[in-house]
Amino acid sequence: MRRWEMTGFGREALRLQRVPIPEPGPGHILVKSAAVSLNYRDTLVIEHGMGLALDFPFTPASDLAGTIAAIGAGVTRFQVGDRVITTFFPGWIAGPPPGTAKALDVRCLGGVHPGVLAEYIAVPEDWCVAAPHSLDLVEASTLPCAGLTAWFALVERGRLKAGQSVLVQGTGGVALFGLQIAKAHGAEVFVTSSAPDKRERARALGADHAIDRDGWVEAVYRLTADRGIDHILEIVGGAHLARSLEAVAVDGRVSVIGVIAGYDLSGAAGNLMLKSATVQGIRVGHRRALEDLVRAVDVMALKPVIDRRYALEDVPAALDHLERGPFGKIVIGFD
Amino acid sequence: MRRWEMTGFGREALRLQRVPIPEPGPGHILVKSAAVSLNYRDTLVIEHGMGLALDFPFTPASDLAGTIAAIGAGVTRFQVGDRVITTFFPGWIAGPPPGTAKALDVRCLGGVHPGVLAEYIAVPEDWCVAAPHSLDLVEASTLPCAGLTAWFALVERGRLKAGQSVLVQGTGGVALFGLQIAKAHGAEVFVTSSAPDKRERARALGADHAIDRDGWVEAVYRLTADRGIDHILEIVGGAHLARSLEAVAVDGRVSVIGVIAGYDLSGAAGNLMLKSATVQGIRVGHRRALEDLVRAVDVMALKPVIDRRYALEDVPAALDHLERGPFGKIVIGFD
Amino acid sequence: MRRWEMTGFGREALRLQRVPIPEPGPGHILVKSAAVSLNYRDTLVIEHGMGLALDFPFTPASDLAGTIAAIGAGVTRFQVGDRVITTFFPGWIAGPPPGTAKALDVRCLGGVHPGVLAEYIAVPEDWCVAAPHSLDLVEASTLPCAGLTAWFALVERGRLKAGQSVLVQGTGGVALFGLQIAKAHGAEVFVTSSAPDKRERARALGADHAIDRDGWVEAVYRLTADRGIDHILEIVGGAHLARSLEAVAVDGRVSVIGVIAGYDLSGAAGNLMLKSATVQGIRVGHRRALEDLVRAVDVMALKPVIDRRYALEDVPAALDHLERGPFGKIVIGFD
Amino acid sequence: MRRWEMTGFGREALRLQRVPIPEPGPGHILVKSAAVSLNYRDTLVIEHGMGLALDFPFTPASDLAGTIAAIGAGVTRFQVGDRVITTFFPGWIAGPPPGTAKALDVRCLGGVHPGVLAEYIAVPEDWCVAAPHSLDLVEASTLPCAGLTAWFALVERGRLKAGQSVLVQGTGGVALFGLQIAKAHGAEVFVTSSAPDKRERARALGADHAIDRDGWVEAVYRLTADRGIDHILEIVGGAHLARSLEAVAVDGRVSVIGVIAGYDLSGAAGNLMLKSATVQGIRVGHRRALEDLVRAVDVMALKPVIDRRYALEDVPAALDHLERGPFGKIVIGFD
Repeated sequence: MRRWEMTGFGREALRLQRVPIPEPGPGHILVKSAAVSLNYRDTLVIEHGMGLALDFPFTPASDLAGTIAAIGAGVTRFQVGDRVITTFFPGWIAGPPPGTAKALDVRCLGGVHPGVLAEYIAVPEDWCVAAPHSLDLVEASTLPCAGLTAWFALVERGRLKAGQSVLVQGTGGVALFGLQIAKAHGAEVFVTSSAPDKRERARALGADHAIDRDGWVEAVYRLTADRGIDHILEIVGGAHLARSLEAVAVDGRVSVIGVIAGYDLSGAAGNLMLKSATVQGIRVGHRRALEDLVRAVDVMALKPVIDRRYALEDVPAALDHLERGPFGKIVIGFD
Repeated sequence: MRRWEMTGFGREALRLQRVPIPEPGPGHILVKSAAVSLNYRDTLVIEHGMGLALDFPFTPASDLAGTIAAIGAGVTRFQVGDRVITTFFPGWIAGPPPGTAKALDVRCLGGVHPGVLAEYIAVPEDWCVAAPHSLDLVEASTLPCAGLTAWFALVERGRLKAGQSVLVQGTGGVALFGLQIAKAHGAEVFVTSSAPDKRERARALGADHAIDRDGWVEAVYRLTADRGIDHILEIVGGAHLARSLEAVAVDGRVSVIGVIAGYDLSGAAGNLMLKSATVQGIRVGHRRALEDLVRAVDVMALKPVIDRRYALEDVPAALDHLERGPFGKIVIGFD
Repeated sequence: MRRWEMTGFGREALRLQRVPIPEPGPGHILVKSAAVSLNYRDTLVIEHGMGLALDFPFTPASDLAGTIAAIGAGVTRFQVGDRVITTFFPGWIAGPPPGTAKALDVRCLGGVHPGVLAEYIAVPEDWCVAAPHSLDLVEASTLPCAGLTAWFALVERGRLKAGQSVLVQGTGGVALFGLQIAKAHGAEVFVTSSAPDKRERARALGADHAIDRDGWVEAVYRLTADRGIDHILEIVGGAHLARSLEAVAVDGRVSVIGVIAGYDLSGAAGNLMLKSATVQGIRVGHRRALEDLVRAVDVMALKPVIDRRYALEDVPAALDHLERGPFGKIVIGFD
Repeated sequence: MRRWEMTGFGREALRLQRVPIPEPGPGHILVKSAAVSLNYRDTLVIEHGMGLALDFPFTPASDLAGTIAAIGAGVTRFQVGDRVITTFFPGWIAGPPPGTAKALDVRCLGGVHPGVLAEYIAVPEDWCVAAPHSLDLVEASTLPCAGLTAWFALVERGRLKAGQSVLVQGTGGVALFGLQIAKAHGAEVFVTSSAPDKRERARALGADHAIDRDGWVEAVYRLTADRGIDHILEIVGGAHLARSLEAVAVDGRVSVIGVIAGYDLSGAAGNLMLKSATVQGIRVGHRRALEDLVRAVDVMALKPVIDRRYALEDVPAALDHLERGPFGKIVIGFD
């Protein structure tokens, strides 16, 4: 079978190799890949490893959808032929995440754990959940990271209610899932983008307001009669948190998801305190919430937005596209 | 009657004046003061006004306990003779606070609204709640700001559970209320202080661990086997938030209360996100929570820690003490 | 002006009278009625008073939409010309409802408090909220009781999430609001009804499944692969709660709203305990939640279902219709 | 080793047998028993099996504390020598419990799953949690069912706050854990009992009010100035729920735990609805909550109340004691 492997850092160290199909050991399942969805973090892992302790050769990527080709001894949750998707943080089933105050847990697929950019993967059955009935596997592959991140921020942690306002920054994968999930929950949705054509496409997807990235806080004041935004997905991060704390409504919530503008968050204490606002760190989400999202996708008839699909051998072009900033998701299809 | 009045900013513009006892209008109550508890913010209002739109002469201070001396027409919640305490943010009864994303609500007693450093005050009946049965009025005067802030952070917003860990910074009014409320909820309590004698007194109050301010994060790792702290009361504020995000446990919560180290919060995104942590802005609390605290004080038999009591004419000495950093509360007694 | 008044119990004691237009006192507003929505409880009040201490002549009904014609001294929340709706339990602003364990609070409009079936009403400004922009006043009049009851059960108390299942019993006002709110939240909706044509209309409104009242529990098992229902609006009440406890999902919730089958609730402890289920009593809801609903109605573009509109003089015919069981709401229009 | 085995129903079919010490398979641990705590349900299983599908010979009982004597291949959570306690519902880690609306999950230890009344047990490592440091193993054995049930009702589901009122019915194991946990959370505690000496002992344990079972609702009204009780542990069950709905405070909660008075719950809809009350079914609790309780026990320094300890061969006498109604827990000690 074919599998992408890093022999070191940098794009030139990423190669498509031929390796044997793995055997599923006890409690493991062998999944035949149908699609792998790429995330911006995959480009960082490939470039410099994000400080993670990777064993080379290392296969990147975390989000796979496929069909179970074989099962190991003792497997009870799945059967051969089942359609499944992976979980981003294997082993985080429900409740608090692993790790401690001092030792942060960073063990995701495609980062410490070997990734999924391969025609077959063998993983513990606990690392997968059933794919939604209403999506094909290319669409389903977008849920484990981007879909779940937006869902976890808005629904699991944010307890979003109809009538509340939601703002997403940009039109990447998490942002568009945020838009779609919020609309399906009866929310009023704001999208920021510097590109007029992307604003237009966001409106076509259901955004109530698509506004320029420049001056977005003032635009929010104007469009909400100063009320502000109940839930903000902070995808830019860093010092941009200060803008979100200006825009957030009284009793509102800023979910910190992205680090595009850096790893050092900052903002005004007055906004946080006098608005009684919440800043919530989001680390994708747990398996139980992914199962909730899968059921919700079927009920809401939500269709993930896929900007473009690439073939397995075209991963480098797909990564280029990812770095340019897609509208929604970039997916590698395997057939 | 006597009343402290600011004719401008600075300590020299603060004078004890003789003025007529006010009349309670319709819906108002006249309260004969027994005690006024001072907060650090009162020193800032007196020094420079904190940017608030104050009408001079202006009376500072927010936290009063007293006895109702007369009631205006239509008053239904109280009778003459009832023992009451004030609310810090008058009119915030329950639910979300007033204000908008753009226009922050800052109208507390002793800041925009006239304050309470007077032998009598006349206020709407909605601005007071019944004092606890188990406290004298000097003790009761400490609840409206310091007591409620700690309660709102830990219990109302934080849903503190027995067995969780709580850390308070320093040994001021909010910190010691945090200590006492957390112990009464079955929590494990950590106090930081640079003064050995204050650490000793904190232990005597029930703190499980009183640790030096220097290196407190490493001490927390050591004392918790790296697990960290579930609830941190961030009383220092500013860039010190970064330390709290290092010390906070997975799924933990930092309640931002103080601005001693400045108004610009900052910290590492990685700690916030990978720990799934929450940073919660605290603006004292609403009247319904103050009523909960009053009942809890009676049931828990909690006795507020009063460092020293001053007479009405000794407000300047009391303010000096406040600036030096008391152990618990500074109260002006009126008899 | 004209006003319906009961001089005693029974339909024959209900008369349309001419009385002076009231004056709004201090803090009161005079509302010119545009529409009054009737509830099943109004027929009970008219027939026998439900055991309430009513002063005759007594005006029934609780849910009014209208326009402010005049304001009394000291009114701050509204201006002449504002479109408003009433609140069902006046004075329940937010937080816990009034009343005690022993002395239940039953003081709603049209029950203890004088009702609204009149061309003008004068009430404290705190008893009203702004009507939604997106509804005409006939539609808006349906929100204070039926709309808020469904919202409070599903959203405020139930924290409904997309992908969950919701079941409503029958096709009356609360049931259809439940259907519409649940669909707007991305839920899968089940409606029970014994009438094939009503089931058809429920499907046309968006119900995913409209099933016969007979054998509905088995139908739920079949349609959900035994999973059951996450949120049930128990509108039948009494011993029928037992059916809902059979149908409710693990960790699910039954909101008790109706008393059609009697005031004595009963059901199996095994279902309640082994499913970790919740039975939640619903008493309409508080003003803050009504304000949330109003905003949500605007964002969701929810249009209340009005079976038929009657003129003020046709209240008796409207009550007859109500007793036959309408599809949605019965409204009295005033123009 | 010795193990109690049922060869059929009835006390005479329960025999102490000699059997080989089991071997721990892959992922399993061998636990040397130090103590087994008995619950009332064990007497029902022994008498008639509670309708469960038991394989004879069947060993009863669910709550064990012991020391790990050996571990199977692949065990990661524990080491030989670790002190552990069992979980009542093996496999319920966190989040919603297993089972469906139709097929209730009843698979606990000592009911479907083989029980623990044996000198050694071999179970999957996931079925145990670390014992608290501050308890000996006889005390620790009381946590898995009685301790966790009270904790789950009051803390995990009930989010108990200091100052709230809690009422427990009787002085059995769950009731006394409820008393102790509530006191450690700063609550005001009411205990009902028909036995004056048990009321006296409950007061000595910290109960604020110990009242006669006859007329307890009126006593509650009197002692709370009609306010009622925020959290009631309904241990009697059946039609007695009606009394608890009379006594429960506005916005209060009744946790249904016991079935002494039968399996058919009933009560007045008016109390449930007008008080906005919650009736919550409790099924012991999940493993994550048991871990929370273990940590809380250490921090609160809670000492479980053990009425009497019996030797392994004296199980019949212990069951007799259990049927007479102990004050706290009955434990079988193994040394």
